[in-house]
Amino acid sequence: MTESLNRIGQQAAVAAQALAQLSTKTKNQVLRAMADALEEKTPDILAANKEDLADTIDLEDKFIDRLTLTANRLAGIADGVRQVANLPDPLGNIDRGWATGSGLEISQKRVPLGVVGIIYEARPNVTIDSAALCFKSGNAIILRGGKEALQTNIKIAAVIRAVLAAFKLPQDAVQVITETSHELAQQFMQLNQYIDVLIPRGSARLIQTVVQNATVPVIETGAGNCHIYVDETADLQVAEDIIINAKTQRPSVCNATEKLLVNAEIATDFLPKIAKALANSHVEIRGDEQTCQILGDQVHPAQPEDWNTEYNNYIIAIKVVHTLDEAISHINQYNTKHSEAIITTNYEHSQQFTQQIDAACVYVNASTRFTDGFEFGFGAEIGISTQKLHARGPMGLKELTTTKYVILGQGQIRK
Amino acid sequence: MTESLNRIGQQAAVAAQALAQLSTKTKNQVLRAMADALEEKTPDILAANKEDLADTIDLEDKFIDRLTLTANRLAGIADGVRQVANLPDPLGNIDRGWATGSGLEISQKRVPLGVVGIIYEARPNVTIDSAALCFKSGNAIILRGGKEALQTNIKIAAVIRAVLAAFKLPQDAVQVITETSHELAQQFMQLNQYIDVLIPRGSARLIQTVVQNATVPVIETGAGNCHIYVDETADLQVAEDIIINAKTQRPSVCNATEKLLVNAEIATDFLPKIAKALANSHVEIRGDEQTCQILGDQVHPAQPEDWNTEYNNYIIAIKVVHTLDEAISHINQYNTKHSEAIITTNYEHSQQFTQQIDAACVYVNASTRFTDGFEFGFGAEIGISTQKLHARGPMGLKELTTTKYVILGQGQIRK
Repeated sequence: MTESLNRIGQQAAVAAQALAQLSTKTKNQVLRAMADALEEKTPDILAANKEDLADTIDLEDKFIDRLTLTANRLAGIADGVRQVANLPDPLGNIDRGWATGSGLEISQKRVPLGVVGIIYEARPNVTIDSAALCFKSGNAIILRGGKEALQTNIKIAAVIRAVLAAFKLPQDAVQVITETSHELAQQFMQLNQYIDVLIPRGSARLIQTVVQNATVPVIETGAGNCHIYVDETADLQVAEDIIINAKTQRPSVCNATEKLLVNAEIATDFLPKIAKALANSHVEIRGDEQTCQILGDQVHPAQPEDWNTEYNNYIIAIKVVHTLDEAISHINQYNTKHSEAIITTNYEHSQQFTQQIDAACVYVNASTRFTDGFEFGFGAEIGISTQKLHARGPMGLKELTTTKYVILGQGQIRK
Repeated sequence: MTESLNRIGQQAAVAAQALAQLSTKTKNQVLRAMADALEEKTPDILAANKEDLADTIDLEDKFIDRLTLTANRLAGIADGVRQVANLPDPLGNIDRGWATGSGLEISQKRVPLGVVGIIYEARPNVTIDSAALCFKSGNAIILRGGKEALQTNIKIAAVIRAVLAAFKLPQDAVQVITETSHELAQQFMQLNQYIDVLIPRGSARLIQTVVQNATVPVIETGAGNCHIYVDETADLQVAEDIIINAKTQRPSVCNATEKLLVNAEIATDFLPKIAKALANSHVEIRGDEQTCQILGDQVHPAQPEDWNTEYNNYIIAIKVVHTLDEAISHINQYNTKHSEAIITTNYEHSQQFTQQIDAACVYVNASTRFTDGFEFGFGAEIGISTQKLHARGPMGLKELTTTKYVILGQGQIRK
């Protein structure tokens, strides 16, 4: 363990104890001051961002786009911080409470996780969003972002830390790891003594690296091999609208649909219709044997690995299934437990699908694109959990807390 | 990955899908039948247990005691299974539900975790308790117990599996790993494809091995370096009763108290009194400098490592502190986030202690020994979580579940 990482962890743990005791009112004042400071310091942050951008060569446009800040984007992110200030504070809520036979009064109370670690790619907006969400939920945060955004992240953290200092709060509530080696990232994932939870945000590869190497408890986020099943009773226009939305509104994100299952009874009718709509949206179709038979030359045959693949692109694979059972069993075999939808007008089918599909979010007659903290009404999100431990689905402020049992007695001893 | 472990995982995943759909009524019938079968097959189970015991040499009495089954103990464990049948089923409960601006109806519904892995020592009661709790909460279980109990565990699983078969339910809902090598244990901890959660139960060493090596999400259980702080306003008789109970009622368990902090104002009065009571209960005292000054020869000086040590034995370390702040800061530095208590008659002190101590359970004027699923009223427990993710404190049936969002729409697409 390097000296410096250990110190960062220790500082975060000390800061976390102070954060846990702050009033909601103070936290909201500080968040609004942070938003103002980020806007005031826009020229400095953009200058740091320019430095980072000057160092990036040979990178994809998509990557550059995510790394780039503008005054407009920064204003939008600062507004997000103000929105976090406006959200209800989950801390102090009592989830449940009861008295035991021996007269103990037990309350299960919401408290912060403590120290949250975030490992992410070169997206400076994540730095600000995560810091704001963790601060509001009473957690200290340690940020380890992509090295391509390092100067931007350092500058953003400096702005936020200056606000904390102005409020006489511990600056180490928000810390950025500035050493970008893989060795240090590895040690960060094993800093059990100080980090309570580690959240990786980014590509499937990044997330898998964290899951494989971390000894700190991890919340796995993200990968989405999402399906839509069109039942034989579906309203085909509803199906088409939802499929086009779920596939094309933003194909690069995890809640975009990647696979379409169509009941054989309606396949001859529906497939040409949806193929035409997909073609109009420039979506490439990969079909199973029956789909290829029906659609002919306009589709590529799907390979076995297609059913496992999250394209994050203008591609969809289509399979004809003969029963709802077959659809459910295919989805439960290949999905990443993210978001799955059925399009149907049959009540029993909707019930069977929602009961038997194993996923964070199961939809009837709606687009998988709704799996999102904002759309769910959480105001903001720190990621979408695809594991079953702690949190499942979009994670907002509540998911950044844990509970503590407070037990009030009158001298009880155990018999 | 060995062939056989992979097959066990796959079988568990298939069984889990069927278990998730069972009615509470069916599950309770099956649990009662399991309890009956365990009693009927007592001679077979005791014979297998005798085989295991015959193979154990050079082991501590405590170890042999935990491994040994008798007809009486088995009847008690079977009764525990009947109690699990009587507990409310957490599945299907809606934690919360709401409608979004776009008219989606979202419900957050309790569902099983899926496949639970348990790694534990040579304690056959854990085999039955865990199988019953996982079955009731709709989870398939894979059991990897200590090799010294292997024959007993195989026989118990056979009895339970025969009951499942009689009810035409998948026997692979309960599986025992029969290969006891460390390599296989290692692979078991990394069976991410099939296991949703891994729960280690046993010594601090076992738990650390799992935390360090698992890639599957783990719920860390157990270690308890628990403290009692006696405030200057405490009722000293209440303090004495609670300390003696918390230290001596069952010193080998994680919720037993290991450390005593005493406010300096009452130290001269209270320490001789409590030292006498502890001596009567054959408890060795290790004191900090001031405690040694007050108590003289009857105490050993505490070494720095004492403050970190969970003795699980008739030993206690005592430290004199000058303020509540000092007590809180000592506890937050050295505790294992398990159970901590203050003995006080002062309202503000009770508030400050429960708010600032970072632990799963924080007590005012009660023994730390109450941190227990039965005492909490959960009916049974699968362990006590000392981590902050997912569950914290005693874990009952609810903690063996996760949630799924069911979203009902009328054709909504995302704008």
